[in-house]
Amino acid sequence: MEFARIVAFSDGVFAIAITLLVLQISIPEQLAPGEHVGDALLDNKGDLLAYALSFAVIGRLWLVHHRFFGDVTSFDSRLMGLNLVYLGLVVLIPFSSEVLGDFGDTTAGVILYAANLSLTNLVGGLMFLYAARAGITTAEFVEYVKSPIRLRNFAGSFVFGISILIALLDPLAAILVWGVLFLVPGGDRRG
Amino acid sequence: MEFARIVAFSDGVFAIAITLLVLQISIPEQLAPGEHVGDALLDNKGDLLAYALSFAVIGRLWLVHHRFFGDVTSFDSRLMGLNLVYLGLVVLIPFSSEVLGDFGDTTAGVILYAANLSLTNLVGGLMFLYAARAGITTAEFVEYVKSPIRLRNFAGSFVFGISILIALLDPLAAILVWGVLFLVPGGDRRG
Amino acid sequence: MEFARIVAFSDGVFAIAITLLVLQISIPEQLAPGEHVGDALLDNKGDLLAYALSFAVIGRLWLVHHRFFGDVTSFDSRLMGLNLVYLGLVVLIPFSSEVLGDFGDTTAGVILYAANLSLTNLVGGLMFLYAARAGITTAEFVEYVKSPIRLRNFAGSFVFGISILIALLDPLAAILVWGVLFLVPGGDRRG
Amino acid sequence: MEFARIVAFSDGVFAIAITLLVLQISIPEQLAPGEHVGDALLDNKGDLLAYALSFAVIGRLWLVHHRFFGDVTSFDSRLMGLNLVYLGLVVLIPFSSEVLGDFGDTTAGVILYAANLSLTNLVGGLMFLYAARAGITTAEFVEYVKSPIRLRNFAGSFVFGISILIALLDPLAAILVWGVLFLVPGGDRRG
Repeated sequence: MEFARIVAFSDGVFAIAITLLVLQISIPEQLAPGEHVGDALLDNKGDLLAYALSFAVIGRLWLVHHRFFGDVTSFDSRLMGLNLVYLGLVVLIPFSSEVLGDFGDTTAGVILYAANLSLTNLVGGLMFLYAARAGITTAEFVEYVKSPIRLRNFAGSFVFGISILIALLDPLAAILVWGVLFLVPGGDRRG
Repeated sequence: MEFARIVAFSDGVFAIAITLLVLQISIPEQLAPGEHVGDALLDNKGDLLAYALSFAVIGRLWLVHHRFFGDVTSFDSRLMGLNLVYLGLVVLIPFSSEVLGDFGDTTAGVILYAANLSLTNLVGGLMFLYAARAGITTAEFVEYVKSPIRLRNFAGSFVFGISILIALLDPLAAILVWGVLFLVPGGDRRG
Repeated sequence: MEFARIVAFSDGVFAIAITLLVLQISIPEQLAPGEHVGDALLDNKGDLLAYALSFAVIGRLWLVHHRFFGDVTSFDSRLMGLNLVYLGLVVLIPFSSEVLGDFGDTTAGVILYAANLSLTNLVGGLMFLYAARAGITTAEFVEYVKSPIRLRNFAGSFVFGISILIALLDPLAAILVWGVLFLVPGGDRRG
Repeated sequence: MEFARIVAFSDGVFAIAITLLVLQISIPEQLAPGEHVGDALLDNKGDLLAYALSFAVIGRLWLVHHRFFGDVTSFDSRLMGLNLVYLGLVVLIPFSSEVLGDFGDTTAGVILYAANLSLTNLVGGLMFLYAARAGITTAEFVEYVKSPIRLRNFAGSFVFGISILIALLDPLAAILVWGVLFLVPGGDRRG
């Protein structure tokens, strides 16, 4: 039961964070005279794009986390600590996503999002390595982590990290770079 | 356990989305001199109607999703992808509902809600067909999907889609059309 | 599993609704010159009182609901419908509570809260009676519902209903009347 | 099942409260002419620090609560009442944390947070003592509570309580005192 509770708690945090994304989409409050609500909604399309992006991102992080926990055989307090730090970064995504929706054309807005995701993926990758070395995963997972495929777990961290530098030159180019990640197969999938 | 976690995650997202609906109901902030809080609350009755409608809508979607998952026997990655897209559309409903509550007398406000629900039902219906064809459901469900009753699963998508055209002429008429759906028995119920 | 999912969904909605209560407590935004944040917090003490009251109220409703579901042996679609209406009223409590915190000295603010709670308790009591008559509860529960103790289930509905009339004369007196309910033992407890 | 539901409800409330912390981080709304969004984000760094602190605090409270419930063997209505009061104080943390993020340099802002945490830890410690005396925990837990280590359970309450007095002199010093708690091993860990 202990194990199941930790998994349920983590899943719950993911489910709440992904659902809170909807709160970031601004509702037109006060229409200027002659303005139509349809135009006001279209002006907010940055919010909708950021919502779709972040829903896909958190959904994918959850799938990877979900598969990882399927390979964990027991918990120690260090893994619980790493998992809490990881969740703390996931829960920040609705905030970074709201800033991206409102200021996605600025360097600072894009850097915040990229830094949030780069760190989340980094801590996730470290959590994988730690668990495999601490001997609290299946033997199959240990094999997997020994193979070069383990680097895939850091692909997200790397691509979002690089995009921070690109955002200094051009915020839009940095966002386009993120698309590369959709070509990388899920980091935890067996080769 | 894997299967149970996906179901629990989906149920969690439904439970959070349906509860977040309450946040859309505006609280009277500042009363004009001589205004009573009772009058301010009555002025917001559009919010309460949108709340009641969307609570019934998400509740019904959950019942159908709930019954469907009772017939699913295993998951593949495509079903998980479809389920995430489906949940992404369900989570948008509190947003569309808030716009409907504030701008339910405008064409754009009604179209947003109708488009959200039409798409949600469409993706839901496709998820049913996919699962039945991929052989990851009970034999009973495959039979059901082969019969003409399967079209019921697209009734929601169709009615909300038609109402988009009607909203171009008259927003209120479009809302009344939605009422037709309460006459259709639940799409996943066996004939 | 079907049964467990409905219970988990209901519990999830209760857990989210009780936690959303915290969002109703206003944060001092902008301090007037010379104003201290401590004073601004004390000015909001209505919010804190409404929070404490509603946390106790939702907590108690959950306990009763929790015990009731422990006596339910199976679900039919009518019980699921009643349960959804019941949850829809529970989810409204954070809204009514926020209005009470801001306008607890007005007749309309107190009536809204009393009406919300009176209806919630009424639907809850009807759900009990329905389940007992439909033969989908334990025999022990049927015995319990046959005894006069069943009227306790409507005590909440009755007291909150009466308080609506009292609020027309004096809002504060109506709030004090609610205190009577803490003397009534939990409606679902066996005699 | 009864027991599992109470545990799941408590875990759910913890998961929601810890995730709601993200809503406290202000989004720059309106930039002054010449102001950059990066500067506006940095001006809000108090919000991010309060987020990190409160995420760690609620995470730790959950770990302790989690371990405690692993030692509870059954529930009585008094333990359920204590648990609800405890959860009611945990759910207040996002509010206190938001005030701390905005007014962490004021005596009142720091006292609110310290009082919230001091009370939470006090009720938690009382819940431990009560359960051990009521004979509804494992024998191992009773042994643990008899030993002087039980005082650790009140360390949080004591340190946050002392910091209230310190905040009257200097708010920043009070915050630094909280750091002492990270040196105390988890209150519920066996010697």
